[in-house]
Amino acid sequence: MTIAKELRGYFLSHRTITNELINKIDKEHYNYQPTETSMSAQKLVLHMLTSFYSITSAAAKQQPKQLHDATETDLNLSELAKTYTEETLTLLDSISDEGFSEIIDLSDTMGMKIPAKAVIHAAIDHEINHKGNLFIYVREMGHTDLPMFVFKG
Amino acid sequence: MTIAKELRGYFLSHRTITNELINKIDKEHYNYQPTETSMSAQKLVLHMLTSFYSITSAAAKQQPKQLHDATETDLNLSELAKTYTEETLTLLDSISDEGFSEIIDLSDTMGMKIPAKAVIHAAIDHEINHKGNLFIYVREMGHTDLPMFVFKG
Repeated sequence: MTIAKELRGYFLSHRTITNELINKIDKEHYNYQPTETSMSAQKLVLHMLTSFYSITSAAAKQQPKQLHDATETDLNLSELAKTYTEETLTLLDSISDEGFSEIIDLSDTMGMKIPAKAVIHAAIDHEINHKGNLFIYVREMGHTDLPMFVFKG
Repeated sequence: MTIAKELRGYFLSHRTITNELINKIDKEHYNYQPTETSMSAQKLVLHMLTSFYSITSAAAKQQPKQLHDATETDLNLSELAKTYTEETLTLLDSISDEGFSEIIDLSDTMGMKIPAKAVIHAAIDHEINHKGNLFIYVREMGHTDLPMFVFKG
């Protein structure tokens, strides 16, 4: 199995659950915050989607595309989740096994230089952390029928 | 570097933060729940500490020790966090590089048979997920000065 295929499966075992949670968020809850100092649900979701995509574009040594208009106020988070997930998978699939060994310079954003494979692993840890946040947001919105934290397809 | 030493560092990069969050929880908040259907803070913390320890004991092919009395009602979560973390590290350190390749049968608990190294990785994902929950609990208790989700020592 290629490294891209292995990481695709690992990424999707978490992103599938992220997207399932996002799909439970009604528009009226996009501005929901657990506390005054918390990110809103919309901000948290956008942070998860855009940071994974942007980190993967760095690992793939490609310029990220502009996938949504940051000035747009009427966003559809479920549609954005679908778009960002597909575009992230396209980038992942474009990285060869050799490419995953190349050192990526993330000094500016994450303060480290690590191999592309480790970059994706760090992005998945970041996704799991914020998905852990999102579970509480969605439960506080009134949902009690929630999935396991990892998808076993 | 041995696999045990590598996994020790990876585990601690998250457990250090878990313990920092646990240390912020006052006794009066041990029963705090974000919603009626959520685990209490105490139950969540005990779940994190005991499940990591018990999964690591399976990976190490050792019987877990009884580290606290489950019937005790007046627990000190910070002390338990210290004990469970130390005992988990002792187990991790006991596994040889060859041991990390051995297949561990977790059919009963996690429905899979995977190498010991993958068992520890799954336990770390589980820790990150619940630490993501715990961040929201602790913020809702009134704390706003919170650490990054991963410790870079």
